[in-house]
Amino acid sequence: MRWALGVSYHGQAYDGWQSQPSGRTVQDHLEGALTRFAVQPVATVCAGRTDAGVHGLMQVVHFDTTLEREAFSWVRGTNTFLPPDIAVQWAQPVPDAFHSRASALARRYAFVLLESPVRPSLENGRAGWVFRPLDQQAMEAAAARLLGQHDFTSFRASACQARSPVKTMRHIGISRRGAYWRFDFEADAFLHHMIRNIMGCLLLVGQGLQPPQWIDQVLAARDRDAAAPTFPPDGLYFLGPVYDARWGLPQRTPAYDWLP
Amino acid sequence: MRWALGVSYHGQAYDGWQSQPSGRTVQDHLEGALTRFAVQPVATVCAGRTDAGVHGLMQVVHFDTTLEREAFSWVRGTNTFLPPDIAVQWAQPVPDAFHSRASALARRYAFVLLESPVRPSLENGRAGWVFRPLDQQAMEAAAARLLGQHDFTSFRASACQARSPVKTMRHIGISRRGAYWRFDFEADAFLHHMIRNIMGCLLLVGQGLQPPQWIDQVLAARDRDAAAPTFPPDGLYFLGPVYDARWGLPQRTPAYDWLP
Repeated sequence: MRWALGVSYHGQAYDGWQSQPSGRTVQDHLEGALTRFAVQPVATVCAGRTDAGVHGLMQVVHFDTTLEREAFSWVRGTNTFLPPDIAVQWAQPVPDAFHSRASALARRYAFVLLESPVRPSLENGRAGWVFRPLDQQAMEAAAARLLGQHDFTSFRASACQARSPVKTMRHIGISRRGAYWRFDFEADAFLHHMIRNIMGCLLLVGQGLQPPQWIDQVLAARDRDAAAPTFPPDGLYFLGPVYDARWGLPQRTPAYDWLP
Repeated sequence: MRWALGVSYHGQAYDGWQSQPSGRTVQDHLEGALTRFAVQPVATVCAGRTDAGVHGLMQVVHFDTTLEREAFSWVRGTNTFLPPDIAVQWAQPVPDAFHSRASALARRYAFVLLESPVRPSLENGRAGWVFRPLDQQAMEAAAARLLGQHDFTSFRASACQARSPVKTMRHIGISRRGAYWRFDFEADAFLHHMIRNIMGCLLLVGQGLQPPQWIDQVLAARDRDAAAPTFPPDGLYFLGPVYDARWGLPQRTPAYDWLP
């Protein structure tokens, strides 16, 4: 039987999502916990890998197992074996046709940023930081130039394994609550480091160091060197994948209400 | 010259505020950083000590020094020597009559709580947890009974060093954003563990295990055993002291916008 799980985690202590020989990744911990609960090896496939230091509000994985248990048992049982900064939020049986990565129609991320003369402290590891004031209108004008289908080669890490650099950006939203900015992104898929590279560019525009139309040049160059340096991962949150409603999977986790 | 500093910190990694032989307290780190910046010993007095695991949005300290530096130098210079989860937010010269503890007219705290069938993960160490739904009206009725001047002996830890158990609770506010509850407290001063003990009682009422008027019995008993067990510290935030406006000190820090 195939199961889908929604998983939340704070990424600061982990070497990213994907299994590594170090064993210090979120996938390593999750599969270890599932295997201990099921008393049989469990291998998972995720909707979107996250880098070291990136947080997950609703990563979705699927796995196949012969073990028959109620949904709440998978949640509670697995959480017993997970560290305190990782938790399964929900478990649901899915048809074999469901695939956490291939069935995802889109992915959503949020980037949270502190604008302050003083660096983060309470929110260390959970928010990016700029000390210069940001111009929302300029950043929105820049972001609008990234909407739609583009070749995002200029925003792609050299290690990226995606087959195509052409992606469709469906939405970029920029809002703030007091000293904290929030950038929301939705695309069919993202290249490696794509959001962190976009963030670097939007912040150059927001600080008045580049005009909004500079984004057109960066896109057209199809050259990583044309864009800004990769922004640190601390404020990046994987909100989760978007699936067709027919799968009947939860759309959010409680932590959605935690972010600014 | 006397200076006042506003300090923010995430308390999870520290043995509370007050200096300990371990050296692993927020005061130890702050005084170490001030001493390195000033190249002379600096001793601080704080507005309100916080327990291990409790966070500070705006702890206020004062200290005396012969070193003459601009306010922004005290902030930036000290932060250079502080760990990434502690930061000085502001520095301001104050008259010798100012005393961070004695001049405080009141203290404000917030307690943040996740209501969910699943324990915290992303917000591990930053929020308390209840899995049973809470009744806001019942908790507000219970909280109202704590307002005003009372002998809070029933909510006082045995190790408490306060001269008197009589304190004046000026305000308790209960609100929620999605899955997160927020409890705001303001009193002239708080006894050791007082908020965590009050939280334990409010949550018994909120879960329907005690009626709101039970709080009257707990207060009247003047006996720690009459109240609920001490609630864990994870969701407790020291918002800061309240001073007379004549001192001209900042009333808040950016992290005020971080909490739900």
